[in-house]
Amino acid sequence: MTMQAPYTEAAVLGSRYRKVRDYSVELIDGLSAEDCQLQSMAEASPLKWHLAHTSWFFETFILGELAHAPTPFDPAFKILFNSYYIGVGDRHDRPERGMLSRPSLDQVLAYRRHVDEHMQLALATADFPAELATLVELGLNHEQQHQELMLTDLKHHFSRNPLFPAWRETGTDQRPSPGPAATPLVFEGGLVEVGHDANGFCYDNELPRHRVWLEPFALASRNVSNGEYLAFIRDGGYQRPELWLSDGWDQVCSEQWQAPLYWQHDDSGWHVFTLHGLQPVNDEATLTHISFYEADAYARWAGARLPTEMEWEHATTQNQPLQGLFDEVWQWCNSAYLPYPGFQPAAGAVGEYNGKFMINQMVLRGGSLATPTGHSRASYRNFFPAWARWQFSGVRLAWDG
Amino acid sequence: MTMQAPYTEAAVLGSRYRKVRDYSVELIDGLSAEDCQLQSMAEASPLKWHLAHTSWFFETFILGELAHAPTPFDPAFKILFNSYYIGVGDRHDRPERGMLSRPSLDQVLAYRRHVDEHMQLALATADFPAELATLVELGLNHEQQHQELMLTDLKHHFSRNPLFPAWRETGTDQRPSPGPAATPLVFEGGLVEVGHDANGFCYDNELPRHRVWLEPFALASRNVSNGEYLAFIRDGGYQRPELWLSDGWDQVCSEQWQAPLYWQHDDSGWHVFTLHGLQPVNDEATLTHISFYEADAYARWAGARLPTEMEWEHATTQNQPLQGLFDEVWQWCNSAYLPYPGFQPAAGAVGEYNGKFMINQMVLRGGSLATPTGHSRASYRNFFPAWARWQFSGVRLAWDG
Amino acid sequence: MTMQAPYTEAAVLGSRYRKVRDYSVELIDGLSAEDCQLQSMAEASPLKWHLAHTSWFFETFILGELAHAPTPFDPAFKILFNSYYIGVGDRHDRPERGMLSRPSLDQVLAYRRHVDEHMQLALATADFPAELATLVELGLNHEQQHQELMLTDLKHHFSRNPLFPAWRETGTDQRPSPGPAATPLVFEGGLVEVGHDANGFCYDNELPRHRVWLEPFALASRNVSNGEYLAFIRDGGYQRPELWLSDGWDQVCSEQWQAPLYWQHDDSGWHVFTLHGLQPVNDEATLTHISFYEADAYARWAGARLPTEMEWEHATTQNQPLQGLFDEVWQWCNSAYLPYPGFQPAAGAVGEYNGKFMINQMVLRGGSLATPTGHSRASYRNFFPAWARWQFSGVRLAWDG
Amino acid sequence: MTMQAPYTEAAVLGSRYRKVRDYSVELIDGLSAEDCQLQSMAEASPLKWHLAHTSWFFETFILGELAHAPTPFDPAFKILFNSYYIGVGDRHDRPERGMLSRPSLDQVLAYRRHVDEHMQLALATADFPAELATLVELGLNHEQQHQELMLTDLKHHFSRNPLFPAWRETGTDQRPSPGPAATPLVFEGGLVEVGHDANGFCYDNELPRHRVWLEPFALASRNVSNGEYLAFIRDGGYQRPELWLSDGWDQVCSEQWQAPLYWQHDDSGWHVFTLHGLQPVNDEATLTHISFYEADAYARWAGARLPTEMEWEHATTQNQPLQGLFDEVWQWCNSAYLPYPGFQPAAGAVGEYNGKFMINQMVLRGGSLATPTGHSRASYRNFFPAWARWQFSGVRLAWDG
Repeated sequence: MTMQAPYTEAAVLGSRYRKVRDYSVELIDGLSAEDCQLQSMAEASPLKWHLAHTSWFFETFILGELAHAPTPFDPAFKILFNSYYIGVGDRHDRPERGMLSRPSLDQVLAYRRHVDEHMQLALATADFPAELATLVELGLNHEQQHQELMLTDLKHHFSRNPLFPAWRETGTDQRPSPGPAATPLVFEGGLVEVGHDANGFCYDNELPRHRVWLEPFALASRNVSNGEYLAFIRDGGYQRPELWLSDGWDQVCSEQWQAPLYWQHDDSGWHVFTLHGLQPVNDEATLTHISFYEADAYARWAGARLPTEMEWEHATTQNQPLQGLFDEVWQWCNSAYLPYPGFQPAAGAVGEYNGKFMINQMVLRGGSLATPTGHSRASYRNFFPAWARWQFSGVRLAWDG
Repeated sequence: MTMQAPYTEAAVLGSRYRKVRDYSVELIDGLSAEDCQLQSMAEASPLKWHLAHTSWFFETFILGELAHAPTPFDPAFKILFNSYYIGVGDRHDRPERGMLSRPSLDQVLAYRRHVDEHMQLALATADFPAELATLVELGLNHEQQHQELMLTDLKHHFSRNPLFPAWRETGTDQRPSPGPAATPLVFEGGLVEVGHDANGFCYDNELPRHRVWLEPFALASRNVSNGEYLAFIRDGGYQRPELWLSDGWDQVCSEQWQAPLYWQHDDSGWHVFTLHGLQPVNDEATLTHISFYEADAYARWAGARLPTEMEWEHATTQNQPLQGLFDEVWQWCNSAYLPYPGFQPAAGAVGEYNGKFMINQMVLRGGSLATPTGHSRASYRNFFPAWARWQFSGVRLAWDG
Repeated sequence: MTMQAPYTEAAVLGSRYRKVRDYSVELIDGLSAEDCQLQSMAEASPLKWHLAHTSWFFETFILGELAHAPTPFDPAFKILFNSYYIGVGDRHDRPERGMLSRPSLDQVLAYRRHVDEHMQLALATADFPAELATLVELGLNHEQQHQELMLTDLKHHFSRNPLFPAWRETGTDQRPSPGPAATPLVFEGGLVEVGHDANGFCYDNELPRHRVWLEPFALASRNVSNGEYLAFIRDGGYQRPELWLSDGWDQVCSEQWQAPLYWQHDDSGWHVFTLHGLQPVNDEATLTHISFYEADAYARWAGARLPTEMEWEHATTQNQPLQGLFDEVWQWCNSAYLPYPGFQPAAGAVGEYNGKFMINQMVLRGGSLATPTGHSRASYRNFFPAWARWQFSGVRLAWDG
Repeated sequence: MTMQAPYTEAAVLGSRYRKVRDYSVELIDGLSAEDCQLQSMAEASPLKWHLAHTSWFFETFILGELAHAPTPFDPAFKILFNSYYIGVGDRHDRPERGMLSRPSLDQVLAYRRHVDEHMQLALATADFPAELATLVELGLNHEQQHQELMLTDLKHHFSRNPLFPAWRETGTDQRPSPGPAATPLVFEGGLVEVGHDANGFCYDNELPRHRVWLEPFALASRNVSNGEYLAFIRDGGYQRPELWLSDGWDQVCSEQWQAPLYWQHDDSGWHVFTLHGLQPVNDEATLTHISFYEADAYARWAGARLPTEMEWEHATTQNQPLQGLFDEVWQWCNSAYLPYPGFQPAAGAVGEYNGKFMINQMVLRGGSLATPTGHSRASYRNFFPAWARWQFSGVRLAWDG
């Protein structure tokens, strides 16, 4: 398969396994079983489902492949917690995930413990197969992706409750951006290399590393802030069709968008629903929860454009003072999510991981405050449809050089 | 107001209050908080919501009207658990009821206890106002209606889970009908009286009692059974447009109906999802979970027709051996749900109880195995849209006399 | 069959046939082939289709039944111009009728001439079967129904063109109502007879004549006027949920209704699109193009109610000064369109004419300025869904006696 | 502006103007006014609308800019026949174009003559402004695009009529492909230039010419044929999810796709609806009317992939025996329709021509049998959503080098 993992000592992998798996359960600390069952839209899954599906991955692709595979925890989970791997068999309908009061959260947590016990046993054996070690690494990265989704999905679920529940009572998910005005940093371009260098883990969609030609360009030293976006709103940004792509304007009209997702306006000004409850919008914080359409319209209004994913990736390697690349928001790129030249999906069902989604989606680069530490990298390709807003997605401006 | 309650001694009412209220909580015995949060479609509410809304009724219309009204348990519940009483203010969107993980089931049960304590205190006072006693009786009947909905809604919620969860592990909700062939019982008709006689409680929609002229007719001595309906299915009932009303046939085609709701067919024959899990269809049991369209098509196929609600009501008063009137299934009538001559909705917000739904619905008469004991009566008018199937709804044949 | 026609001399029938058939073609005088192809919604058919379908009726049910049936004009028309008679075979999808540029209007008119020639020949024969004469009479009444639909459908088609085309350049379809204030006329009720007396033609749905008991009631001497309805609008009628049935209020909100269909408001006041172009609303004219929901809400606002169809029919026989019964607007009744006691649909495919629509529709009584002369009568039952507004439908108030 | 036209002598331009404009009217030769009004879906416009809109372009952007601008033919046409140029003012809703029986086809043809007369007068003047000449050239290319749409839209309109009308009674639009098996032609790639060289007319989206790096690749010498695609169908292509992109499979399921658009299967085999009526599928003809999803699935099944637009463009300049590039079908590329580096939309309303659609669309390269002679070129970028099938769209295979 094309997912590349470094050679991993079993002990190291076992320790990493435990750490990643534990973090998923930490995320639901303080949440009730009812909270973990919410499903607010087809695209966002219940937290209970995330917890089960990530375990299903290990049970199916690792434990099920062992010479002495343990008995499945519950045969029905094979279908219930398959997400989209058609190669593995039937699936439960995505919009119906919130209908699963059974198995209970307690049973799902027991399922996790069952899988973890067997995985720890397996990883502790001397002869754990190397090709499975690579799949374990994939499973851990898969779980980290779902950890970010747990937070973004929960935020969406909770946003539908007029009581504005908080995931954590204190703190904020409004990430302050670094104060001073954004500076355009200039890059020469030319014939450069992009894609993962296969040194360490990466997904198949980051490969192969290959050459691209870039014209000179400039990239902003930081991401756009809430305050800057408010100027766009106040300038009638959501009422001026000439600033928008045609599909974007249709969306603005049909959805009656007036501001980023989760923002609301009343006599006391702009407020935003966060994972920590409703809060006043912080002008200094990094703008987030915008669609590609809004990122694009804002850039046009600002006399700029969005970067391509290649410009973005190349820039991050050029030793320039680029701030907030990986820890604020995913940054929309004006690049469609398509295969690299020579792309080969992995063999078997895990080959469905990335390649089958390479249509009708735009690339985001970077990482967000919800991305688990160490999960992202310069060559990482995140992707969502142009209308999606429930991720921590923002914008960094670019210009022709 | 037009809801009529008998004079009720405070002590008697207090005892009745406790009994009815306790039964709602008994219904969720064995269910988890997750189960009680499920909402499978806009028309079916989570059980948690039913438990809260019925309490909201007493808090709003009784406790809120007392001279020394207790502090509301939680001001937000005013909006969250209002169902449709526009006169009372804002409401939370019906399809969003499943999005309320907060308040938790525990909090809702605490809300119930809070309301119950204050209600018991009030009912124990010497000067409990007579006009409020009438509203308490309405509130208890309202709660009994919701008790039936709790079971029919739960059945629908659970039916979306491929694991086929059971409300109770043993038993069945397939109610055996009384064996022998149905006999047409003949009634002379003429100028008869229908509607409630105002002796005891009734809803406003059962009043005023009034005269109607009935032509001679016949009514079957019992309800149609599963076995009889299977003959209709096997005779191509779902493939023959000439048997159906035009809207019914459109529904059959667009929804691809092949059998009653919850029925499924495989190599081992017909099975049906019940509140007690998946079971083989019992030919001897009373047919249920059919729409008005199916009831009407079946009757046409059988050379019969549906009774009108007036025929049905009159027949029940004529000392004939009619079986299964109130304890098997609600029986679809070929009568639209419209006001009686001289109908007056109650004053105030409770006046929205019935009158505003008098359009686009058909009447069902009788009662079902899920109807709380003592809740129904000969003049009771249940109503649902012609497509609805998730109630315990069946058919009793009629003929011209 | 149950449609009742008087004994008709062939010559009289032939003359009547010609007159009715010619009128359909007169209706498109001044319209282009393009106009006659418009289809603005699934419920409204192109005029070309009406012209063809009414001819199809005679070709199928009369000419096709003759001993020496003529060759069909075009076998494809059998499917293309069948409306809903499932008993006759396949049909072309209703919403697709506007897709038929072929056959051309010219070909459809040739089809009409072909059918007319053969019909005239047949009607001139001495031995024209009596049972077919009854079907001819049905066909002519069928055509007259479609003549009214041609005008109401055309009005809807034209309303979608921002140029506001006129069917006729001069005149108006705002029918002035008779000036003085409406008077409540009182009726005693009692055991009365309704339904057609079978003396002359009627549809099966008007039979059998039967007894009903009516409580005393009052009926307004005339229909509601535009000016009276404007008072309702100005009093916030469309913003007050307590005035509306629940389904009606949902419709007001989802469709953003603010006034009757075809009304629009600007700085120069209220205007209305008519068959004669855009015109100022005439306060003195009869209100029309309202749904059942609006009729019902208006009546509630006015402290009145809608009549039942039985009250309406009985009143028209009582020699009272009731104005505008048949020549202004169809009058919404608070009666669902359901079968009379003892109703029998006709045998064969024409039995699909009425009975299969007896669900989810409300009755309108009377007739409109678009109803062909002589087509309506006191027992005539028109019916449309509660939301429908594109017919000439209005309201006459009633009260309990 | 960025649309580049060669210096054009007024006389040459006048002659070219006449020729292009005349061809639009030739296309409706033999069609009725009714045919020209059909609109089968929101995306496909009536032919009458195409004829008017292309005239509106010249009236608005050329005649309206003249020093002595002629009086508009009809002020209402300003709105009715604007397609999407928000900068020019209001527009008539796209799905409503089929509702315009007025103006008639005759009036639209008169409008064309009016515009043509004034255009010819203007083009004959000595001082016709050079910047307007560039816009005239744009208008003529715009009209040629609409000429292709007139045929593809008409085909879709006619396909909804069960009579299978023919645009031309004889001939076929099944374009035979060049017999022998397709050969993979190998290209070295490297740092190449793509985009228009600004020598002659091009659209803004073909500019600027710029460098790209291409890895070695191979491209098939001809397009895929019907016969080859039938092998895919027979091998279960439409039943095997592993061959499809995720969105593509969803589309296959929801739309129940079994074959290309316009194909139907019965006992006598496969038939296809053409502009010349229903015909047996010709195995030797070039495959067409497939979506991007189908092109992509077919390529995967065939062990190949789609070319990128850059590979395609570069290959056409390399003096290889590539057949059917411009005269058979548009060839789907695995490239999203996005701006070239340094792209600048034209100033003013014509700047809306291309740029605002640069999202959610895939690029097609080449040209089809419906493309007017001389309209396409190697740098031409056509674009449609991945689901679109009503264009003459096919597939040419590619492979990694």
